[in-house]
Parts: sequence; structure tokens; C-alpha cells
Amino acid sequence: MRIAVIGTGSAGRQLAEGFRRIGHDVVVGTRDPAATQQREEWSGSDLSLAALADVGRGADLVVNVTNGEGSLEALAHVELDGKVLLDVANPLDFSAGFPPTLSVKDTDSLAEQIQRAHPEARVVKALNTVTASVMVDPRSLPEETTIFVAGDDAGARETVRSLLGELGWVDIVEFPSLDAARGLEMWLPLWVRLMGALGTAEFNLRLVR
Amino acid sequence: MRIAVIGTGSAGRQLAEGFRRIGHDVVVGTRDPAATQQREEWSGSDLSLAALADVGRGADLVVNVTNGEGSLEALAHVELDGKVLLDVANPLDFSAGFPPTLSVKDTDSLAEQIQRAHPEARVVKALNTVTASVMVDPRSLPEETTIFVAGDDAGARETVRSLLGELGWVDIVEFPSLDAARGLEMWLPLWVRLMGALGTAEFNLRLVR
Repeated sequence: MRIAVIGTGSAGRQLAEGFRRIGHDVVVGTRDPAATQQREEWSGSDLSLAALADVGRGADLVVNVTNGEGSLEALAHVELDGKVLLDVANPLDFSAGFPPTLSVKDTDSLAEQIQRAHPEARVVKALNTVTASVMVDPRSLPEETTIFVAGDDAGARETVRSLLGELGWVDIVEFPSLDAARGLEMWLPLWVRLMGALGTAEFNLRLVR
Repeated sequence: MRIAVIGTGSAGRQLAEGFRRIGHDVVVGTRDPAATQQREEWSGSDLSLAALADVGRGADLVVNVTNGEGSLEALAHVELDGKVLLDVANPLDFSAGFPPTLSVKDTDSLAEQIQRAHPEARVVKALNTVTASVMVDPRSLPEETTIFVAGDDAGARETVRSLLGELGWVDIVEFPSLDAARGLEMWLPLWVRLMGALGTAEFNLRLVR
């Protein structure tokens, strides 16, 4: 399928490359494609870049990999109506340093904010609970681990679930309601502290039941 | 050692019985021991009960298993100075139904509130990330899982770590700072939703790295 990745940071590039590796047609959305192409980390890349206003055109799936605090602003420029929007971003607030706090939590979530801003989009929260290299290659960890999918739209959840399967995810726990994104995003305060304690971001939880 | 368990709910009883099973001298603190003894679930129990004002006397370790919203009030009656306080409670707010929200989070935690209220106590957060039956019997799950310990006082963390080992915990991740309790408590919004999705509270995460 055609996947539009919104976000040109390291995570955006890793996801775009990961989706392309499994055979998808990927385009990366950025405010200014010419400027992004000049950046050192993009100059050697042959990933397609497009302006935010154009990147949604023809896309079956749009993936939000922007910085959580800039997500609403960036997505405002993207055509999302009727599309599946996979939100992998986290509303991390680093304004007081490390560890970050969450700019939205508990009674709301970034995913729900995006859904309210784009009522015709089919928002699914997934993959935000792991670092980008694990998102696209779960088999890089020494054991099978667990990933979560939350969304109101069953068809959209199925689209994401199928994509996760292609990436190598097997143990997928599904929540049939987007407000479960509150739980997925509130895992981050523990995740960031584990990253500090373990000295690596390459970890994940395996749900034992 | 002598362990004072504060809280007479199901979790308090399970913990008290679990600590006794591994050979500790356990007393359970309650507002009114005679009234608690009359309650159906305590009438057949031979666990020792004591008033909150007396229960801390001679205890090496005090364990807070009260309802998170009542913890500060209950602990106000307990002698905690110089003692290790193991806080397993969660600040769950059910006033708007299920799933609960957190009454303190992100920039503070219940464990830190308790520490501020009892500056001479040596507060350690642990075990709050699993249900009571798993706390005292981690081997009841089909695979080894992970438990967390957070606290400012190294000796107090070691006391708790040793107790966890006696209960059967092997994979113990330690945070040398009590504010990591924010992360441990913020796992709960995902935990309660997983309980709903899985249809059981008997689960835990195994940290794969």
C-alpha cells in the first residue's frame, strides 16, 4: 500500500525505510522537501519527500512520527479525511529536562486530540511503546515481545495489525477504543526511566499471562 | 523480620499471609482491630491485628497496602520514623468509574507524597505493578517476569530487594530515586486496561532486553 510518513527525524526515517523494506510505496512528508533533502541525514537517502499538503494524496495509511508536541500543527496541513492514521508519537515534554513529563495524560491523550482535530480520520495508536528500531524489527530483541493497538475503527485496527504482522509482530494486544491510548502513552514515564537504568532504548515488555 | 502490614482489604490479607508463609512475624494494622476481626473475611484468620497507633512498634518494615486515596490519612497514625516503608499502593481514582484515573501523577507520586509526610521514613516503591497474588507468588505466572524497586535510600532498597527474593522474584530492576515511582504508578492506566482486555489480573510484564 501507499504509506505517507509524517516526520523527518530519526524515527521517521527508520519507519519509512522499514515500511519500504517490506514492499510498501513510501513517501515522507515534510514542511519543505528541498530543505530536508539538504540535511546531512537525508542527503544520501533515496526516500521520496513531499510537502505536507501533498503527502496524503493517494495514501492508504498516514503515519504520525512527528515530535508529539508538534503533531497537531504538522498534521493540520495533511489530508487525512477517510484515511487510517497510525499515531506512533508521544506527548513528551522536555521543557524541564530529563526525564520528560507528558503534556497530555490520564483523562485525554495525544491520539484523542488528533482524532478530535480530524474527525474523519480513522486514528489508531500503536508502536509508541517501543523505540523506532524495535518498531520496524521486533525480532532484533532476544525474545518475542508484545505490542498494542488501540482505535475506535475495527477496519483501521485491522489495517495496522496487518502491517505489524508484516514487520514481524506476533503478540498483538488490541483495545477496541482509542481512549486506551491514555494507557499506552502513560507507559512512557516508566519507559524513559528504564532506558536510563538499562542504558539502552532497545527493549520492550513481553506480556506474560 | 517483623513486618507491619497496613490495610485490611484482600491485597493486605494476601500480602500478610505471603510474608508469614516465608517465615516473617506479621501484624496487620487497622483502625479498629475488634471490628476488623468481626468482618467475614477476617473472622477465620489467625493473623494478628493491631491498632494503627501500635502496629509500627518493633516493626522492621511497614508495608502500605491501603487504598491509594486513603493512604496518607491511614499512615498518619503509624509510627514510621527510621523505618523502611514499602509502598505498594496506587493512587487510583474511581470517582468517574472504570477505568480509574490517577489522583497524583507525572510531576509527583503517591510514594513521594508519603515520603514528604514522613521525612524520617525510608520509603521504597515496589510491587504496585502487579496484583496481590502475583506480588507474593511470582512463580504462579508461566514465565519469570520483572519487578521494580524505587527509593532514595540504598539500605531500604536492599531490605525490600531481599524480601522480594524470598518471595521468588529474580528479575528485579532498581531505580535509585523515589521519583521513579511516578513511572511505576503511571503503568497502572495500561495495567487496568490490560486487565479488562485479558479478563484477568494475573499477568505481568517481562522486560526483554
